[in-house]
Amino acid sequence: MKNRKITLEEKEIPEKWYNIVADMPNKPLPPLHPGTKEPIGPDALAPLFPEELIKQEVSQEKWIDIPDEVRNIYSIWRPTPLYRAYGLEKALDTPAKIYYKYEGTSPSGSHKPNTAVPQAYYNKKEGIKRITTETGAGQWGSALAFACNHFDMECEVYMVRLSYDHKPYRKVMMNTWGAKVFPSPSNATGAGRKILEKYPDTTGSLGIAISEAVERAATNADTKYALGSVLNHVKLHQTIIGQEAVAQMQKAGDMPDIVIAPFGGGSNFAGLAFPFLRLNLAEGRKIRCIASEPTSCPKLTRGVFRYDFGDTVGMTPLLPMYTLGHNFVPAPIHAGGLRYHGAGVIVSQLLRDKLIEALAHDNVEVFKAGVLFARTEGIIPAPEAAHGIATAIAEAKKCKEEGVSRTILFNLCGHGNFDMKAYEDYFDGKIMQHELSSEEIDASLAQLDTPEIN
Amino acid sequence: MKNRKITLEEKEIPEKWYNIVADMPNKPLPPLHPGTKEPIGPDALAPLFPEELIKQEVSQEKWIDIPDEVRNIYSIWRPTPLYRAYGLEKALDTPAKIYYKYEGTSPSGSHKPNTAVPQAYYNKKEGIKRITTETGAGQWGSALAFACNHFDMECEVYMVRLSYDHKPYRKVMMNTWGAKVFPSPSNATGAGRKILEKYPDTTGSLGIAISEAVERAATNADTKYALGSVLNHVKLHQTIIGQEAVAQMQKAGDMPDIVIAPFGGGSNFAGLAFPFLRLNLAEGRKIRCIASEPTSCPKLTRGVFRYDFGDTVGMTPLLPMYTLGHNFVPAPIHAGGLRYHGAGVIVSQLLRDKLIEALAHDNVEVFKAGVLFARTEGIIPAPEAAHGIATAIAEAKKCKEEGVSRTILFNLCGHGNFDMKAYEDYFDGKIMQHELSSEEIDASLAQLDTPEIN
Repeated sequence: MKNRKITLEEKEIPEKWYNIVADMPNKPLPPLHPGTKEPIGPDALAPLFPEELIKQEVSQEKWIDIPDEVRNIYSIWRPTPLYRAYGLEKALDTPAKIYYKYEGTSPSGSHKPNTAVPQAYYNKKEGIKRITTETGAGQWGSALAFACNHFDMECEVYMVRLSYDHKPYRKVMMNTWGAKVFPSPSNATGAGRKILEKYPDTTGSLGIAISEAVERAATNADTKYALGSVLNHVKLHQTIIGQEAVAQMQKAGDMPDIVIAPFGGGSNFAGLAFPFLRLNLAEGRKIRCIASEPTSCPKLTRGVFRYDFGDTVGMTPLLPMYTLGHNFVPAPIHAGGLRYHGAGVIVSQLLRDKLIEALAHDNVEVFKAGVLFARTEGIIPAPEAAHGIATAIAEAKKCKEEGVSRTILFNLCGHGNFDMKAYEDYFDGKIMQHELSSEEIDASLAQLDTPEIN
Repeated sequence: MKNRKITLEEKEIPEKWYNIVADMPNKPLPPLHPGTKEPIGPDALAPLFPEELIKQEVSQEKWIDIPDEVRNIYSIWRPTPLYRAYGLEKALDTPAKIYYKYEGTSPSGSHKPNTAVPQAYYNKKEGIKRITTETGAGQWGSALAFACNHFDMECEVYMVRLSYDHKPYRKVMMNTWGAKVFPSPSNATGAGRKILEKYPDTTGSLGIAISEAVERAATNADTKYALGSVLNHVKLHQTIIGQEAVAQMQKAGDMPDIVIAPFGGGSNFAGLAFPFLRLNLAEGRKIRCIASEPTSCPKLTRGVFRYDFGDTVGMTPLLPMYTLGHNFVPAPIHAGGLRYHGAGVIVSQLLRDKLIEALAHDNVEVFKAGVLFARTEGIIPAPEAAHGIATAIAEAKKCKEEGVSRTILFNLCGHGNFDMKAYEDYFDGKIMQHELSSEEIDASLAQLDTPEIN
């Protein structure tokens, strides 16, 4: 019998997160004040985040200790298994060796609790009673609900009304872990009330939900706000994935030539890829790290590198990022976690320095890859995860064409148990291609009046 | 950091299933022909099942080899982890040590693939092209779809129309693994057409769905039928759970005083409990094994031991079982997997011989236990699994009252990702108590004219 899974023991859960900033040849540019456009310091984040997370956000230290309390909760589902994809390899008839790290074993079903747990922990430690956040499809909201519940904290989730009405099961999941879920816009905040007054029938947006969650945190001393991707400390926490994967690849007596992960705000990709990039930066290895994005939201492959806002309204600091423009509205693809206009700061700098690569996949190709994976490997992937599979398949096919064997590793970041509607749409022929024209991208970028970067 | 999970390596997946019949002091009574009421032999099963499974159904051998091809697919999710429930223990403030075996890591989310995979394998080996089955909520149907897909076999699932319409996501899951799913009654069978003609608007029943699946198998030489519980070979396959658990408890340096599992047809309970009962039967240990059933379907705690049909219509052989009568219609509780009128033959004999125990829990108590578990351990359990949790909590509370520490192990047989509607109903106060009156049970049993057992 061939060995399919490479597992680690609970005691092998890493004890430190890896901060890639320490190893970057070009450090990220500073964030700018949205009004003055002058560089801002960490204190600007103090109303929203606890001190320890702000420290991590700007840290230059290479290794940051993971508290025992956090590792203890990680141990509910970590270390996660790493698989050799024998079934997929056979179906592709490829000389490539394909591995995947499976993050869907967490209680909420994705990699998101890797950062939700430490975020809740540091807030609790600093006396915070309540954490607010926004959520679209609900993957991040349920991870934070799970984490807050473990530290006996209140969790308030502002869920885009469209999702609240159409995807009730994620909401119930959050309730089961004790979180309060509001359809956004809600009557619980000034921002929400103002919008409801003007547009009583609105289905909401992620931008509005962020405004509500941020308002609650900014106006209550015992309340802070949490974000599920983009920021440096979020990427930092996710490096637990890649560190385990490095150990597991070593245990398998192998090492990837290519590392692949889906790309939304960057934490999924950072989580798997940064510990392998460390081997490139510190040991001179040449592992290709590829971010997988949807063709309907191609900020890495077709966006520009300049300062832009993190939100639609333009309230956040200006960040140096690959962006399609903060007013860009991606098509309503099922991979909701990848529908974000910009890329996190660190990943953007790495792409600019050509230390990583990016590849975009069409929605139809992505679901085809997801179904092939389910039928050959058994696990039904989330649509976000299926983007990574599509890239892995593309690279494995290249190996076949070129007649070379390469070792490919990708992040299977979550299962599709809450995404069955997406698969139903695929089988019903309702999944459409979403190729953006250059005119559409140019039109969005033309609206930007944020500082350019030379 | 306390050790929470006890894991095994892939190579530690057991190599044999355990057949408790070999160790039983009183062997099960023979099945009877539904018409003649005379004992029947294994050949009566030949139209429906492959030879190897029929052999296992009547085997007296203590150990039966697990084929490498089956172990290879098991390795997608096996060995499953065994957890120490520190969070639940703390919440209950009990001196008891509580462990649980978690079977929700399988791709379909429950223990069902443990038998679906070998059933598909043996059918494939004997040249069968297609397997048919019935499914209610869809847990068993999706396990079989997953298994057939791995052996490149067709899978036809007759899904009760009410579930087909109201629980579309399980159906999509089965489609994703390539299965054909028919709302039952369907036009694909004579039985279905006959019922549709008479009752075009019927929402179907499990009894009708069984008739359709059986008809397809009985009338097509390349087609067989598969069952997800009750039968001896199904229980046999599930013993992989308990064998792993015995090894894991030994690794933890502990051994349970009490072993608990939810009870529908018996395979869930058999899976965890039989390898511990072996220690009782072969080594003189005194581990209490408790089956958890709903008060709305209490065949073990309030049924009678006599011959009865396995199906509602009365087409199957007569089996010696604890039963509420084959016409008994349980309340529509969310734990669909536990809504069965009878108990499997082996488990019934063991209960009659007082080698195992049974406990019934009310629906409201069960959901309260499920939510407490989700909030203290992190994993949201399936309603079926929450029955086992309720029993574990009851026993842990007894330990507290009596001031003694006992070691409790239960089977967390599946996650609740597809059961969020049930939790929503619970939070909305829509889950009702279902206590049956003695009159209701007597009325159902009074209809029985099947052979009694002295």
